[in-house]
Amino acid sequence: MYSIEELIPIVNKAIDGHYNNRSPKRLYEPISYAMSAGGKRIRPILCLMACNVFSDDIYKALEPAIGLETFHNFTLLHDDIMDHADVRRNQPTVHKKWDENTAILSGDAMMIEAYEYFLNLPTEALRHSLKVFNQTAREVCEGQQFDMDFESISSVKIEDYLEMIRLKTAVLLAASLKIGSIIGGATSNDANLMYQFGIHMGMAFQLQDDYLDTFGDESTFGKKIGGDIVENKKTFLQISATEKNEQLMQELMQRTYKNNQEKISVITQTYRDLSIDKAAQNAILDEYKRAYEVLNSISVAENNQKELLKFLDQLKQRVF
Amino acid sequence: MYSIEELIPIVNKAIDGHYNNRSPKRLYEPISYAMSAGGKRIRPILCLMACNVFSDDIYKALEPAIGLETFHNFTLLHDDIMDHADVRRNQPTVHKKWDENTAILSGDAMMIEAYEYFLNLPTEALRHSLKVFNQTAREVCEGQQFDMDFESISSVKIEDYLEMIRLKTAVLLAASLKIGSIIGGATSNDANLMYQFGIHMGMAFQLQDDYLDTFGDESTFGKKIGGDIVENKKTFLQISATEKNEQLMQELMQRTYKNNQEKISVITQTYRDLSIDKAAQNAILDEYKRAYEVLNSISVAENNQKELLKFLDQLKQRVF
Repeated sequence: MYSIEELIPIVNKAIDGHYNNRSPKRLYEPISYAMSAGGKRIRPILCLMACNVFSDDIYKALEPAIGLETFHNFTLLHDDIMDHADVRRNQPTVHKKWDENTAILSGDAMMIEAYEYFLNLPTEALRHSLKVFNQTAREVCEGQQFDMDFESISSVKIEDYLEMIRLKTAVLLAASLKIGSIIGGATSNDANLMYQFGIHMGMAFQLQDDYLDTFGDESTFGKKIGGDIVENKKTFLQISATEKNEQLMQELMQRTYKNNQEKISVITQTYRDLSIDKAAQNAILDEYKRAYEVLNSISVAENNQKELLKFLDQLKQRVF
Repeated sequence: MYSIEELIPIVNKAIDGHYNNRSPKRLYEPISYAMSAGGKRIRPILCLMACNVFSDDIYKALEPAIGLETFHNFTLLHDDIMDHADVRRNQPTVHKKWDENTAILSGDAMMIEAYEYFLNLPTEALRHSLKVFNQTAREVCEGQQFDMDFESISSVKIEDYLEMIRLKTAVLLAASLKIGSIIGGATSNDANLMYQFGIHMGMAFQLQDDYLDTFGDESTFGKKIGGDIVENKKTFLQISATEKNEQLMQELMQRTYKNNQEKISVITQTYRDLSIDKAAQNAILDEYKRAYEVLNSISVAENNQKELLKFLDQLKQRVF
């Protein structure tokens, strides 16, 4: 079985230099910049690992794996325009480094490139993988739209929030696993179980992000703690707290604070008082539990799953 | 053989209501709006006509035909953001009626929908059609980038301009014909000839647009005459005139005029003095001639091509 450490250089090698010397430069240089900015390469690695669960030959899933990473980076590029985000992975975003038109068009071209990576699959895998990919791509857009819609809705329900993060984050992780499985030769049932596994992993991952943004450790989380609170962002914590005590939360979000640090302390303490930290931990643990259960039900030798289990354990260790 | 008049309602029926009741509304209503705004449905009609050249069953090409129209409307939607265009087909553009974020994201979702329309093709046609479509989609983006690049280049060469309009306009018409041919069961050679036919038709069509914007008749052209001159737009006319007498054209474009009408008259007269109107007519006629030649070399009964010939004749009559 390939380990994460072995897969990362395989993925990076397939990405490096792919857009060199393509014309027009102004279209392809931003794509190259966005693709080489790093990131954890989670989606291609999941795709390759899933393939490896069912097959020794991971290389047959390499192009689609890069397609999934390309699509993911396309969504970041366009989301950054929509969110007016100036920095991504410690570098200026494409629309800041170049301009907005460049970011729109390079993003469009990136999405097209993502599809290109699927077109050499063997016939049986081609249609099946593309159907999964296309439905997922559509759902990711729907998730982004729901996320933007929530900004102007005063009270978002927790189930709507969970559906939004399923669409915006979990389905692409799940699709990466399912597509890798299909290419690896999994039965339809096993491919669907891998998808379910990915959904629970993705939900856990996003809920953790919400949790860590408030309760994490700056040195390991990699972002400033409390950003979501400062921005009054609708997260699992904020929505759960509002469901428990709407009046209090409204007052706390509208109150004038001496500075951001005071706002962060007051609201963080309120979350603790309302046991929202515990609720979040329970929700995350529940998703991990389901992920393990689904993975166990897949009909392959236990040894074949060990790298995926290790991956899940590493994710989980960010919180627990 | 199906006539244009028979094909238009078939296309419109396949488009109407497709996005009704889809959620989130804010994502799908702009798509529905953009798709139902009309337009001449040239691409799906060409796709169906090409299929009809090789097969009696045009319905097997209907979904991909709508996919091509969806892709075309996606490019208009994003181009309108980039060009800051407020009106399209006498209606406010999506980014004006809603906002820019909505236009970016709905456009993205439209591109994904375009691919969806290909995924039910029979296996042999699926990969082949998608490869043609994907290469074309990429080239359309490249064409748009070259077009934007030209705005900041003082002297564009005529061959670079022709390559730009090939990418931005001709390849999608050509691909529509090729994909319809593939689905209709054409040999690879005939499908490629249909593509070449489409390239010449597309070049003629775009060169006509340039010509008619200055020398056309407002009542039949549908747009105000002289818009390109007012905006100093780089067109076949402007670039050809600049190649003939750069100093004069620079002076005329920088001169201060009493009003737009004066600018239009002076520059139109200059084009006539430099015989640019004749040069454009010759370039257009040459493309039509090549289109007819290529069409004649396709190995099907003459009767099968008559609707395509009628289509070409109608296009040509806009000028001659």
